[in-house]
Amino acid sequence: MKLKILSLGGIAVNKNMYVYETDRDIIIVDCGIAFPDEDMPGIDLIIPDTAYLQNKKNKIRAIFLTHGHEDHRGALPYILPNLPKVPIYGTKLTIGLSKMRVEEAGVKADWREVNYGQSISVGDFTVNFIHVTHSIPDAANLLINTPAGLIYHGSDFKFDWTPVDGFPTQVQRIAQAGGQGILCLLSDCLRVEKPGYTLSERMIEQTFESQIQKCAGKFIITTQSSNISRIQQAVNVAQRHDRMIVFAGRSIEQSAEVAVRLGYLTLPKNKIIKAEDVSRYPAGKVMVLATGSQGQDNSALARIANGEHKIKIAEGDFVVFSQDPIPGSETAVDELINTLIKAGADVFYSAILDDLHVSGHEAADGLKLMLALTSPKYVWPIGGTIKHVKQYARLAQGMGYKDSNIILPEDGEIVEFEDGKMRWGEKAEVKNVLIDGLGVGDVGTVVLRDRRTMSADGVVMVVVPVEKANGEIVGEVDIVSRGFVYMKESGELINEAKSVVQKILKEHAGKAVDFRFLRRHITDQLDEFLFKETHRRPLILPVIVET
Amino acid sequence: MKLKILSLGGIAVNKNMYVYETDRDIIIVDCGIAFPDEDMPGIDLIIPDTAYLQNKKNKIRAIFLTHGHEDHRGALPYILPNLPKVPIYGTKLTIGLSKMRVEEAGVKADWREVNYGQSISVGDFTVNFIHVTHSIPDAANLLINTPAGLIYHGSDFKFDWTPVDGFPTQVQRIAQAGGQGILCLLSDCLRVEKPGYTLSERMIEQTFESQIQKCAGKFIITTQSSNISRIQQAVNVAQRHDRMIVFAGRSIEQSAEVAVRLGYLTLPKNKIIKAEDVSRYPAGKVMVLATGSQGQDNSALARIANGEHKIKIAEGDFVVFSQDPIPGSETAVDELINTLIKAGADVFYSAILDDLHVSGHEAADGLKLMLALTSPKYVWPIGGTIKHVKQYARLAQGMGYKDSNIILPEDGEIVEFEDGKMRWGEKAEVKNVLIDGLGVGDVGTVVLRDRRTMSADGVVMVVVPVEKANGEIVGEVDIVSRGFVYMKESGELINEAKSVVQKILKEHAGKAVDFRFLRRHITDQLDEFLFKETHRRPLILPVIVET
Repeated sequence: MKLKILSLGGIAVNKNMYVYETDRDIIIVDCGIAFPDEDMPGIDLIIPDTAYLQNKKNKIRAIFLTHGHEDHRGALPYILPNLPKVPIYGTKLTIGLSKMRVEEAGVKADWREVNYGQSISVGDFTVNFIHVTHSIPDAANLLINTPAGLIYHGSDFKFDWTPVDGFPTQVQRIAQAGGQGILCLLSDCLRVEKPGYTLSERMIEQTFESQIQKCAGKFIITTQSSNISRIQQAVNVAQRHDRMIVFAGRSIEQSAEVAVRLGYLTLPKNKIIKAEDVSRYPAGKVMVLATGSQGQDNSALARIANGEHKIKIAEGDFVVFSQDPIPGSETAVDELINTLIKAGADVFYSAILDDLHVSGHEAADGLKLMLALTSPKYVWPIGGTIKHVKQYARLAQGMGYKDSNIILPEDGEIVEFEDGKMRWGEKAEVKNVLIDGLGVGDVGTVVLRDRRTMSADGVVMVVVPVEKANGEIVGEVDIVSRGFVYMKESGELINEAKSVVQKILKEHAGKAVDFRFLRRHITDQLDEFLFKETHRRPLILPVIVET
Repeated sequence: MKLKILSLGGIAVNKNMYVYETDRDIIIVDCGIAFPDEDMPGIDLIIPDTAYLQNKKNKIRAIFLTHGHEDHRGALPYILPNLPKVPIYGTKLTIGLSKMRVEEAGVKADWREVNYGQSISVGDFTVNFIHVTHSIPDAANLLINTPAGLIYHGSDFKFDWTPVDGFPTQVQRIAQAGGQGILCLLSDCLRVEKPGYTLSERMIEQTFESQIQKCAGKFIITTQSSNISRIQQAVNVAQRHDRMIVFAGRSIEQSAEVAVRLGYLTLPKNKIIKAEDVSRYPAGKVMVLATGSQGQDNSALARIANGEHKIKIAEGDFVVFSQDPIPGSETAVDELINTLIKAGADVFYSAILDDLHVSGHEAADGLKLMLALTSPKYVWPIGGTIKHVKQYARLAQGMGYKDSNIILPEDGEIVEFEDGKMRWGEKAEVKNVLIDGLGVGDVGTVVLRDRRTMSADGVVMVVVPVEKANGEIVGEVDIVSRGFVYMKESGELINEAKSVVQKILKEHAGKAVDFRFLRRHITDQLDEFLFKETHRRPLILPVIVET
């Protein structure tokens, strides 16, 4: 029987969401968000495009989540309301974190906790969860038995033999699955550019340990909120040095709370204090775990750096960035580092101190190990951009894979398997669905283009009052600008611009006026005039007011 | 006699400009630009703030340029018109590149070419040019003899013992200067976070050589336009492989032209072709040197990638990024790499291939060598942000410098030397002077704030027509938005917003209306309404039209 696989998030690091489809049934793997680029001003989030599922809703049988990161489950609150209420399968922590967010959004769902090794049969599919290590506990790869063959869904993983929670990647089970004959491996490829193997998470504790010994003030660590193992290591170090522990920032408080409740994090209850109580302890007796590792504007660490938080920076405080900037965040992180230094902190980050962060993704040799363990007929790199996918293809070629067995779909291309062979299916449209405030998908290219124009050169409004009856100009032309020039100091320019508009109006006086034509005329001539005078191209917006 | 030194560009990697001042005389070192951050939408450039010089113009005796990079001489066209016409000293290539740009801008200047070793006396100062290697030929450090003592102005340098032009850093002269007793070393610190020494530029040619042997198609290299040595190495490789050479992009064409004319670059005349002629040669016989190494939108490489250039990407073409992204350009570069791969090119960049780029700045051990050679009483790290300056301070501490001898000024703090001692002077205001189009400094915080607001959530204009005589509302309230929601699909929201405004107007009907009050009222209530409905906060702009 035929199997179709489609990435609803396209070729991307984030917004992971995969459709597995037979003639009768569909299962969905993951439902994640992405964060916007610089060229999407004002956008909060991007979610996958579920248009493809629109007329297939009755075929959807279940959703499977691989792990609890936002880019694999963060779109659930937005997408669940448009899907039939099907079971959502995941491991304990994954379900715990997902449920929290979905319930916050007031959405109901059918949660199903899964144990590793358990087989879940839904329609044409049987899904088995294999434990893998990653930068969050309780992460899984999925072994999916389909009518067309066995698929290994190898989303985010690394081979950490000494993980903090003592539960390494189930390498024997992966090898066993490989022995059964895997038709296709979908493999994480994000870190394919790095040679060798990714280091074990456990080494971070040594780095914290050696730094805290030099620190006379507060020891402030920032990391990804969901990195429970990192938090556990920080807590271990705090306990050894008899420091009180403060969580600063909503997302780290929440994920610690869930992790403690579900047994993934052990906190010494009597050592946890609140931000407002920090000043009651000697600085050398405090550890702060703060959000803001990507330099986010409103994060706890940014507020601490800018003196807008209950926790204040003082001479002797250390701030440790136990997280590298993700692409696009470099400038924000650099700025936060500089602000913290200016405030008096000693700041440590990867460029000046080794072993402050290890990735949750496997590097090139680890990816080869996965390929060797699963020895699939086809391999399909996922979870990366085009450059990662291309580099993974080189890696697979190096291991003897022919181009015809390396699957590199374009955005929206459906991959079909039948009789042990892969072929290209139709192409679905997978757009970026943008979330801005409460709106889902209501900001499109026109709105973004306008935002970019206004962002670069501002807006100039021209108000032309005309008499409703005969279309004659009554009263004065008014010009108002924002983000263009400082109006108080540019009176002359604005007056000249008014003259340009008045000249156009005079030319058309008495003639039958098509307002659309007039508006375009004003826009064109004003654009030309302002560009000549300023070399700027603000958005020009003529408003004709009928009175 | 007292000496004052002030950085007019503040603590920064770019916009280098230093004032050396005695009671009688001022000399200026460098006059560079910086590029804007993400939070300065629409800004083209930033130049140093010369307000401090405003009432001291008659003391200015000369400008000295250390090298030909934009961040050391790019602000000349903007700043020269506001200064008295004083001599501008620099080495041959530095003057050549500066002159080209300044003349393009229609500004006249008094150019003075300097040889290394030559002493230039102006007023209280005697300046000596010492050759250093950097990512542009003909770069200098300045040994400045002042009435307060000897200052070593160590802007951008590295110790390259095998530079492409065969002219290494004049290490003996630096040591000699050190032997005379240097009061203060101002030292480049940009690469202080990297351990060891920076590699020699010459190794790049080997990388080009080994890659071109694998390339059956066009061999496209992108690098910084001013990196003449890099261009020379590419040209050498092209000649060995009998490839025709194309320069693509205005800035690389111009700097190659100047470098050839002044004898810093040797091109085989009969091998240089134009972009439009590329298709006349077999792809394997072409090398392209293109601008766009930072992913700039309108660069030749971006246009090539997007199919908007005479040079087209074809299967088999290699694109080599012989330049790492500067902070803030990572995303743009990644996007360009992905577009090139999509177009069919094999793309090579630092993450997947070693030795594609070496820096022009010295790393930690090289910086220590400079400190050892000059053995100054005081050291002042320049050319970095706060984190670099702080890390340099650690480096100097490691070499035995006491905090009191490490000078770390804040933005605008004047450093004074007298009787062999340093002390803090007054604090000058050094703002960012923003260039947007033709305007110099006319975009301030208000305009930028408006741009950011509109960039995030757009603009909503409310047009209220009132009768001039009595202030009564005549006609309909109109609402126009851009960059907020797609208006055609948001009719209901806009209508409700109109009702909000009409309700306010009705409440004030018949009362004496203060338009300012009315405007604020409309703004506040509409802001509240729109935020409730959309969680967005567009810029709200009520326009009251009197008819």
